[in-house]
Amino acid sequence: MEQVDNKQVIFKGYIERAPMETDMEIKVNKVELKAPKGSGSILVENLYLSCDPYMRARMRNISSSYIPPFVPGQPIEGLGLAKVLDSDNPNFKPGDLVAGLTGWEEYSLIKKTETLRKILLDDQIPLSYHVGLLGMPGFTAYAGFYEVCSPKRGEFVFVSAASGAVGQLVGQLAKLHGCYVVGSAGSSQKVDLLKNKLGFDEAFNYNDEPNLDAALKRCFPQGIDIYFDNVGGEMLDAALLNMKDHGRIAVCGMVSLHSYYDPKGIHNLFTLVTKRITMKGFLQSDYLHLYPRFLDLVISNYKQGKIVYIEDMNEGLESAPSAFVGLFSGKNIGKQVVRVACE
Amino acid sequence: MEQVDNKQVIFKGYIERAPMETDMEIKVNKVELKAPKGSGSILVENLYLSCDPYMRARMRNISSSYIPPFVPGQPIEGLGLAKVLDSDNPNFKPGDLVAGLTGWEEYSLIKKTETLRKILLDDQIPLSYHVGLLGMPGFTAYAGFYEVCSPKRGEFVFVSAASGAVGQLVGQLAKLHGCYVVGSAGSSQKVDLLKNKLGFDEAFNYNDEPNLDAALKRCFPQGIDIYFDNVGGEMLDAALLNMKDHGRIAVCGMVSLHSYYDPKGIHNLFTLVTKRITMKGFLQSDYLHLYPRFLDLVISNYKQGKIVYIEDMNEGLESAPSAFVGLFSGKNIGKQVVRVACE
Repeated sequence: MEQVDNKQVIFKGYIERAPMETDMEIKVNKVELKAPKGSGSILVENLYLSCDPYMRARMRNISSSYIPPFVPGQPIEGLGLAKVLDSDNPNFKPGDLVAGLTGWEEYSLIKKTETLRKILLDDQIPLSYHVGLLGMPGFTAYAGFYEVCSPKRGEFVFVSAASGAVGQLVGQLAKLHGCYVVGSAGSSQKVDLLKNKLGFDEAFNYNDEPNLDAALKRCFPQGIDIYFDNVGGEMLDAALLNMKDHGRIAVCGMVSLHSYYDPKGIHNLFTLVTKRITMKGFLQSDYLHLYPRFLDLVISNYKQGKIVYIEDMNEGLESAPSAFVGLFSGKNIGKQVVRVACE
Repeated sequence: MEQVDNKQVIFKGYIERAPMETDMEIKVNKVELKAPKGSGSILVENLYLSCDPYMRARMRNISSSYIPPFVPGQPIEGLGLAKVLDSDNPNFKPGDLVAGLTGWEEYSLIKKTETLRKILLDDQIPLSYHVGLLGMPGFTAYAGFYEVCSPKRGEFVFVSAASGAVGQLVGQLAKLHGCYVVGSAGSSQKVDLLKNKLGFDEAFNYNDEPNLDAALKRCFPQGIDIYFDNVGGEMLDAALLNMKDHGRIAVCGMVSLHSYYDPKGIHNLFTLVTKRITMKGFLQSDYLHLYPRFLDLVISNYKQGKIVYIEDMNEGLESAPSAFVGLFSGKNIGKQVVRVACE
């Protein structure tokens, strides 16, 4: 049987710190472009791979109900967009496009096909958006904003990591909902995008702010109704001081932290009591029944030009480790994607 | 007009630390036992005064929507049970018993009568319970448990400061609701009360536990569904590590903290995301429409012997400063009340 080269990004071993490129290595193995008979699997060619902050959790050797750790020596697993080359599964046929969990490699044999969604080609929608705007990050924004934040028209919304894969859609959904929206990001270029491309009412570069509390007081003189928290840490502590009574904080991720344990700690939780704040962590996977409604809303608004989406596209599987590592220093501008092969 | 001596506990000035007895002083002034004509006020004799941790917030010179600061040079203001001696208000007449905001003094002229509830004598219910079991602390337990914690039969409930004014009722309500309940307290005597008088399934003395995480893992091998947090600080951090998926934390107070700012910080908030925890601060005053329902439930259960209530009764107004200060070192066993005069 003919075998072809299959470049892979291998996970080397567990870490407790922020990821580095040396935690991964590029290897080449041989693969048959066949789904074995009786396996129920499909063999795909990966086109786009998604770099997401949650993946850091899988680089730790902690088994939890949240997500299983990666397997050392095996390719990184992540969300991607792939084309079916061969199928032993009646639900898929060669030529199908699928989005879901795949491997960081050129070709993957996917046994667990339950996570895959079939994608229909649409000239108006870039294929890569199925791992971003229309994928897990976009749905995280949708579920978090509508289901966790209980937004009301006219409310004051703050989004951190606002130009990121999730934040940029949170801000735009909040604007469509009639809210006043301010975003924080880590560079003047990102702040410019927030204000001039993504339609935020205001934005600030947290690296330029010696005092985050003062920055938030300047942007929200009347206080914050909703904080969509993508970063945790000092920004969360400052936001707690600026919430309005009955404010809501959706805790989506804590990309500022390099481990589950926050060494500096959060010091202003007493405001939860005095201001009757609700702080709620969430995972998009609890809301999957809303996925069709999400797709309808976002696709319709995107096609009307009311939603835009910024991607940071790296070229080639070899660039995946540096693209992933860059997430944790804010190197990416917009949703970080890696193009593995052309469509 | 005849004047009588009126002993008072005067608030001396603002502090940022835990209260000390020297922050208050006993003075005697003269008062007419009359409600001035046209004032709409009532003149009361104070019978019982309630010592509550929230009062520390009023000793800080921070104006917030939460609660106004005390006025230096004036008597401490707090919840109490009093008898009307004279009334210029058609809603009250001499001999009426009232519960609500009054002064830490023998006689008070109350102008703001809106906070007062009229109390009917009931042989089966000690009058002092109207500032405890049937007052603000009891209602805090009721509103927090039923409205914030969304309890379900069979769930695992943890209560800190469990023998205190609020905690002891939370635990008993949770037992009546069919939950498994564990309490923490600061002495073996309190642990004994929790297990043998208040009906908790299990209890531990946090001073005997070198590792709070380990203590909670021992008491809740399957994890905690509901944490009713009266203390904040390290216990909250340990509870975060032991919550079950979709757990709820009602943040009622943070008596372990000596200021709004928590110097050690909370380090385990990442679990909010991975376990989808909801953490909600609340004030009982947002739920006052439920007060009649609360009274029905608690009075009925109390009269059937299904709810008990432990009070720590200090005798005499002079003992009020030390009784209040003792709250913050856990000196009190049960709800701290000061008897100013006999009924």
